[in-house]
Amino acid sequence: MPPFDVPEGDPFGPHNLPYGVFSLGGPGTGSDSGSDGKSNSDSGRRSVGVRLGDHVLDAGAAAVELGSPYAALLARPSLNPLLAAGRTAWSDVRRAITAWVTVPAHRETIAPLLHPLSEVTLHLPFEVADYVDFYASENHARNVGQIFRPDAEDSLTPNWKHLPIGYHGRSGTVVVSGTEVVRPSGQRKAPADPAPVFGPSVRLDIEAEVGFVVGTPSAMGTAVPLSGFRDHVFGLCLLNDWSARDLQAWEYVPLGPFLGKSFATSVSAWITPLDALDDARVAPPTRTHPLLPYLDDASDASEDPGGYDLRISVAINGHVVSEPPFSTMYWTAAQQLAHMTVNGASLRTGDLYGSGTVSGASDNERGSLLELTWNGRDTLELPDGKRTFLEDGDTVTLTAWAPGPHGTRVGLGEVSGRVVAGA
Amino acid sequence: MPPFDVPEGDPFGPHNLPYGVFSLGGPGTGSDSGSDGKSNSDSGRRSVGVRLGDHVLDAGAAAVELGSPYAALLARPSLNPLLAAGRTAWSDVRRAITAWVTVPAHRETIAPLLHPLSEVTLHLPFEVADYVDFYASENHARNVGQIFRPDAEDSLTPNWKHLPIGYHGRSGTVVVSGTEVVRPSGQRKAPADPAPVFGPSVRLDIEAEVGFVVGTPSAMGTAVPLSGFRDHVFGLCLLNDWSARDLQAWEYVPLGPFLGKSFATSVSAWITPLDALDDARVAPPTRTHPLLPYLDDASDASEDPGGYDLRISVAINGHVVSEPPFSTMYWTAAQQLAHMTVNGASLRTGDLYGSGTVSGASDNERGSLLELTWNGRDTLELPDGKRTFLEDGDTVTLTAWAPGPHGTRVGLGEVSGRVVAGA
Repeated sequence: MPPFDVPEGDPFGPHNLPYGVFSLGGPGTGSDSGSDGKSNSDSGRRSVGVRLGDHVLDAGAAAVELGSPYAALLARPSLNPLLAAGRTAWSDVRRAITAWVTVPAHRETIAPLLHPLSEVTLHLPFEVADYVDFYASENHARNVGQIFRPDAEDSLTPNWKHLPIGYHGRSGTVVVSGTEVVRPSGQRKAPADPAPVFGPSVRLDIEAEVGFVVGTPSAMGTAVPLSGFRDHVFGLCLLNDWSARDLQAWEYVPLGPFLGKSFATSVSAWITPLDALDDARVAPPTRTHPLLPYLDDASDASEDPGGYDLRISVAINGHVVSEPPFSTMYWTAAQQLAHMTVNGASLRTGDLYGSGTVSGASDNERGSLLELTWNGRDTLELPDGKRTFLEDGDTVTLTAWAPGPHGTRVGLGEVSGRVVAGA
Repeated sequence: MPPFDVPEGDPFGPHNLPYGVFSLGGPGTGSDSGSDGKSNSDSGRRSVGVRLGDHVLDAGAAAVELGSPYAALLARPSLNPLLAAGRTAWSDVRRAITAWVTVPAHRETIAPLLHPLSEVTLHLPFEVADYVDFYASENHARNVGQIFRPDAEDSLTPNWKHLPIGYHGRSGTVVVSGTEVVRPSGQRKAPADPAPVFGPSVRLDIEAEVGFVVGTPSAMGTAVPLSGFRDHVFGLCLLNDWSARDLQAWEYVPLGPFLGKSFATSVSAWITPLDALDDARVAPPTRTHPLLPYLDDASDASEDPGGYDLRISVAINGHVVSEPPFSTMYWTAAQQLAHMTVNGASLRTGDLYGSGTVSGASDNERGSLLELTWNGRDTLELPDGKRTFLEDGDTVTLTAWAPGPHGTRVGLGEVSGRVVAGA
């Protein structure tokens, strides 16, 4: 029997230990935070929690009870102090918590601090500083190119293989899993229409992504090299980059996506530390174009191969529609970090960057409805009806796991959201 | 003699009263914060300051000394509490401060709390939440279109007259006037080059803009109408959107500007409350295209015409190179706010949005070197040599004034920054 009654093989066993922020009481919906991620924000004291099976350990209270020197990092209403503490502290704290949940001598102290997931509310676990979204899947970029530029000689833009394309998104509308997503309104205009019309989006989509959370800041005017990735990035989460394709198509030339994306970005309530994912590290796909030195991970001295083998699953109303493999991403999170800072842009604790839509090579590995339905040309057959894009009432849930030590699986926290009509 | 020895006609007289954050001691450079806006961050207690002539009133200390109920908003190290207090509080506080600096009975209390600008350090006056940059000058957009798409039928993209185009920028690199700007490095590739090269930008530019500062937040899922502009926006500042044109040209298709902009955005140390600019309000240019109702300010019930008559001046090393008139902007700040939230995106206290480069119709009214030199084809003749783009050591300073009551001028705080080479 594994420690503290977590079943053998549980993807949230003591080899995982992702971090979140919780308060007692809640809607009883497990990892959801209720119909409005903000409505419960004051319904109880917030503390850093660590997931163990289907329970949450009150890590703040545990640290206090056990007289841990990390109480100052854990008995807090946000992960930000822990994020800011740096890589050595991340490892030390993880080692301490592993001991708390595995050493029998701690059982009497820890057991009363484990709360069933169904009895807590999970909150946005950190204060998002800047939010950047990348575009790092070659399959996704080629699909999008073929859909929107069918006559182009190359489905990729000329820069795509030379740099990880990215743009800034709206950090103020990053919400935790469980937060309802109000269908956005805005302008849309098909090329043949005489003028734009205004109304609720008719092409509401998702993008299955992985989000990376920066802990250690960097100074303006300095670049973070590839080898600095693990010093600066604390962990990862699942991320759904909700997208209104009709708004986006009309607005995005020449300055990029704006209202088509800024209405909501959902992240999982659990941040998985990179320290839990050492067995999931894989080499990225072979690069077909030579890279400038600051992006060249083949010749980089660090031992980290850069890729992560994360198996993502996309479900609509509980029905799996796609299983995007993160290992296929052309650009790694380390390359994205190096690129993002090579111009001297600083990092702040709480910076979040999304990988871009994860799409594999196969039809059933695509990370957006845009690709799965080829921009609405095809339909998805679900038990509750056909879909091209999302309908009001649809719930989209991303889940994922990664290979862990000794044949285990490391579960990532789900990110889920239900679409509701605007007022 | 005007109150408290401010000369008659001073653009920072008691009709103005912009807000900033200062600490005592400093580099003696007036409104600069030294060679590195962050190096002085802990050199003294920060407090809200109000500019009066060439002095700064310690508004926090004044509020405490006078037993003002606004001490909780002013005796703070940031403008955020005042910003969050809402429109009624903004007017009440302004009325109170006006009395402090004009009613002779307060003179004895106030005089010792007035510090010469040369003896203080000015800091970034608020915590920037999200930063959005617009593209609202028709002259600028047409110039850019003619430069980069000389063969296009229309120099404007098809969406330009239907919506205020905008994108999110990096809030973590918004810096206060006086902060040195390190020349960014990155990839560039001219269309004829076989591959991109890496190095310091060779086309470093400025964009003369006005920044609008959001005070009152809004809820996700709700739109802020045109008539809500004054309820949500506290004031404005000058903003220099530093731009590396070579980096930008290579990276920006299809997701917009990223590293070409994210290395630094400078704002003035003084935020001018909109309440000080009532006499500067003007009607925007006549719109040539019908607008959707949420943007249609001609039929909007509010009495605010939407435009502001701000006379901007751009100087390089003290030599004026352009005088962009803000009154020519096609899209108003109220329209930008309505557009930014029409998809349900929420506002947070501290959100900052830039107008986009301000360019008038005349050659000497252009707000970027890109336009002033027609992408380097022409040269600017300065007393210290020719320029196409910026050289290391160049200092760019934006200043501005607006019509005030009774023929006065309302001065805007300058935004200045010196370009230095990277390490």
